[in-house]
Amino acid sequence: MSESPNSPTDTVRDEAVVAALREALPADAIIALDDDVMAAYAHDEGEWVPFGRPAAVVRPATAEQVQAVVRVCLDLGVPVVPRGAGTGLCGGANAIDGCVVVSLARMDAVLEIDPVESIAVVQPGVINDDLRAAAAARGLWYPPDPASAPWSTIGGNVATNAGGVCCVKYGVTRDYVIGLQIVTGTGELVRVGRRTAKGVAGYDFVGLLVGSEGTLGIVTEVTVKLRSARAPETTVAGYFDSLVAAGRGVAAVAEAGITPSALELLDRHCLEAVDAWKNMGLSAEADVVLLARTDLPGEAGVAEAQAIAAAFDAGGATFSVVAEDAEEADALFAARRLAYPALERLGPVLTEDVCVPRARVSEMLGRIETAGAAHGVHIANIAHAGDGNLHPLLIVPAGDEAAKAAAHRAFDDIIAAALELGGTVAGEHGIGLLKRGGLADEVDPAVMDLHRAVKTALDPHGILNPGKVVA
Amino acid sequence: MSESPNSPTDTVRDEAVVAALREALPADAIIALDDDVMAAYAHDEGEWVPFGRPAAVVRPATAEQVQAVVRVCLDLGVPVVPRGAGTGLCGGANAIDGCVVVSLARMDAVLEIDPVESIAVVQPGVINDDLRAAAAARGLWYPPDPASAPWSTIGGNVATNAGGVCCVKYGVTRDYVIGLQIVTGTGELVRVGRRTAKGVAGYDFVGLLVGSEGTLGIVTEVTVKLRSARAPETTVAGYFDSLVAAGRGVAAVAEAGITPSALELLDRHCLEAVDAWKNMGLSAEADVVLLARTDLPGEAGVAEAQAIAAAFDAGGATFSVVAEDAEEADALFAARRLAYPALERLGPVLTEDVCVPRARVSEMLGRIETAGAAHGVHIANIAHAGDGNLHPLLIVPAGDEAAKAAAHRAFDDIIAAALELGGTVAGEHGIGLLKRGGLADEVDPAVMDLHRAVKTALDPHGILNPGKVVA
Repeated sequence: MSESPNSPTDTVRDEAVVAALREALPADAIIALDDDVMAAYAHDEGEWVPFGRPAAVVRPATAEQVQAVVRVCLDLGVPVVPRGAGTGLCGGANAIDGCVVVSLARMDAVLEIDPVESIAVVQPGVINDDLRAAAAARGLWYPPDPASAPWSTIGGNVATNAGGVCCVKYGVTRDYVIGLQIVTGTGELVRVGRRTAKGVAGYDFVGLLVGSEGTLGIVTEVTVKLRSARAPETTVAGYFDSLVAAGRGVAAVAEAGITPSALELLDRHCLEAVDAWKNMGLSAEADVVLLARTDLPGEAGVAEAQAIAAAFDAGGATFSVVAEDAEEADALFAARRLAYPALERLGPVLTEDVCVPRARVSEMLGRIETAGAAHGVHIANIAHAGDGNLHPLLIVPAGDEAAKAAAHRAFDDIIAAALELGGTVAGEHGIGLLKRGGLADEVDPAVMDLHRAVKTALDPHGILNPGKVVA
Repeated sequence: MSESPNSPTDTVRDEAVVAALREALPADAIIALDDDVMAAYAHDEGEWVPFGRPAAVVRPATAEQVQAVVRVCLDLGVPVVPRGAGTGLCGGANAIDGCVVVSLARMDAVLEIDPVESIAVVQPGVINDDLRAAAAARGLWYPPDPASAPWSTIGGNVATNAGGVCCVKYGVTRDYVIGLQIVTGTGELVRVGRRTAKGVAGYDFVGLLVGSEGTLGIVTEVTVKLRSARAPETTVAGYFDSLVAAGRGVAAVAEAGITPSALELLDRHCLEAVDAWKNMGLSAEADVVLLARTDLPGEAGVAEAQAIAAAFDAGGATFSVVAEDAEEADALFAARRLAYPALERLGPVLTEDVCVPRARVSEMLGRIETAGAAHGVHIANIAHAGDGNLHPLLIVPAGDEAAKAAAHRAFDDIIAAALELGGTVAGEHGIGLLKRGGLADEVDPAVMDLHRAVKTALDPHGILNPGKVVA
């Protein structure tokens, strides 16, 4: 799980890479030659999986510079590992020994917001929240809202097909990306997709690239659809006395035919961690909280909020309430936002990302409790419950290797349970290195063959983030 | 554009195919051995492009039978051409000499409608309207609504990534398909995608298959997302005195930040053809009609309908009106529905499908008029105007080969103009054979290389509908 020391042979190899990069790029695009800086770019937040020691870290300012880097890597047969802000959780941006890490953070321009076409064109290093703000300034809205939105980049969101809170009603990153400029595995700089509202000209390379974690091409520009700004949301909270009861509340919302604009779950461990940090007094009131939102306009929104509260009650809530005002609603969602950092205070967190059918959320939450008990692992649950996308957070004491090993075993049990319940191993965080085994468990061996065939077709020299997604 | 006669060698080849199919399939799955029946399966509605003479036509009843057919074709090196209802307009289902045509029409079961997961699982031969009806019976809605919805199959809709009237607000077929069962180019029967609300496990083979016109796999089962039933729509009509003015009306709606649930255009030629057939008196009132709908609930819908009418006025409408009731609205949309059959009464129709940025609709409509005038071709315009997706209909007198040639020249001019205006050659009808040249004009040669690489990766023996999409 840490960098291996460089052998003399490795050093010669790495120096050749640096020399070639110096010829191909302006001086300010090559940032990292010393070990400290390089270490900061050696992995994303997927620290539970291995990472290597890059030969160089570059920060290109243009698509042509990215192309130049890929061509150097092609010439020398060196892997290229693209990265955005490094907020990924599966090691998709983890360095490989001797690779060139390409940070796209400098390419951070919002190139265009077009209200008539309802599109934005951005460079990959634009921060998610910055795109949202630029769109809002023109009366538009970019929905995908991963928890990392204040830090993560659109390029990284594209690489992982990032989701978020809005997805239960508005879908994920792939639902918004309509065009890409990419550098291919053979070093060509090309455009795929479109900037029109519709288009079926040829194979869907845009969809294929989204979620491919830099293994099929490096994204240098992104065109996304935007939506019109929406009505203010109304928040509904439901308190439950068990995870299984809260799962029934989720199913009751779906059974009522309601599509809320958010439907999140926080368990007792989250509530206690937030209370311990911010003294919000939440854990005295509930074991599990469901937080829903509706963004239907006017009276329709009022009716939907009441219908959600009624569904919570039907699912067995001990208490449900429609927030009276924005302040009350914000306080409730603050707990959701604070849960992850509050839990991180307790020790290293291994974040799970399984997604199961909505009707199985209750059962899956029970299986997670069982896995935690079986392996003696402290597991808190945050969930995009309305999507069936659960984030059990496996927390271990810092430096306790035995506890880490137990967490990995509980993690495997959770993956196996999700597959048994008709779910998927990865809802929105990607495969990277962490879930490669899970992917192979989920799909047919013949589908793994399809993965390898497409990987070879688009990256014939095997230089694009090799070893991620498919071994 | 017609079948070539079989040589004695061809006959021997075809008999070997039939003999192998007889061994692999039950008798009732092989339907066509005589010329008349075979001719009916030799092409779709893309009769303006060539089609060949199949060796056999089969109608499998199960996915395993489809797999058996593909394995026979692999053994004998024979192309396999899948087809749904044959309503495609680009020759994507046109037969190749000596191929096996696989009609999926018998596989027409709605296997599952699940209101809690909001999904449907169907066989590929299910008619679009039948899926919509099955969903509606459970309070759900399957949005994609191509004009062919009463006849076309979901499998065909998946193959072409079909669109329709709803797309301006609700997207196209690809936005709804989340899982597929397919027979691969190597004869494996596998599942790709998911049945959960979210999922990022591996490459997006579902998106890649949608719109690939049977060239990358044969679809044997489709899982789609459904939406909750929506509020009744309100219709708004705007009358304009020129195509260019109507184009300005479209832009005005977009500039006002409105996303209508439909925004269609009908020109004078359509109105006159409908009047000549059904005597609706439309062409006396307008040169061009825009028809919009809103499905926002309650007061929000009333406000949006008024805002659309105001945008039409701002764009230069001579008259605009919010329909008072469903009857008046239905009468207006009846003209839209009747336009295509009314025009087909006048002679063979070559249907275009370009899509341009919304802001360029007005200019593109002008360029279409210019192309018609330059080549002496009668061109009527139906358009999903809110998407910028235009269907200029090039109408020639039956049997007039010179007029047909002129229509092809006007068609090429229209494609060139769409590309010049930043559009795409294909909005929702696919590439098939008709738009292969247009696709090559639209994308970079390196992107055509990507197409060929993916085609080879997924169809290594070149048997899946060869020659469609990519030559």
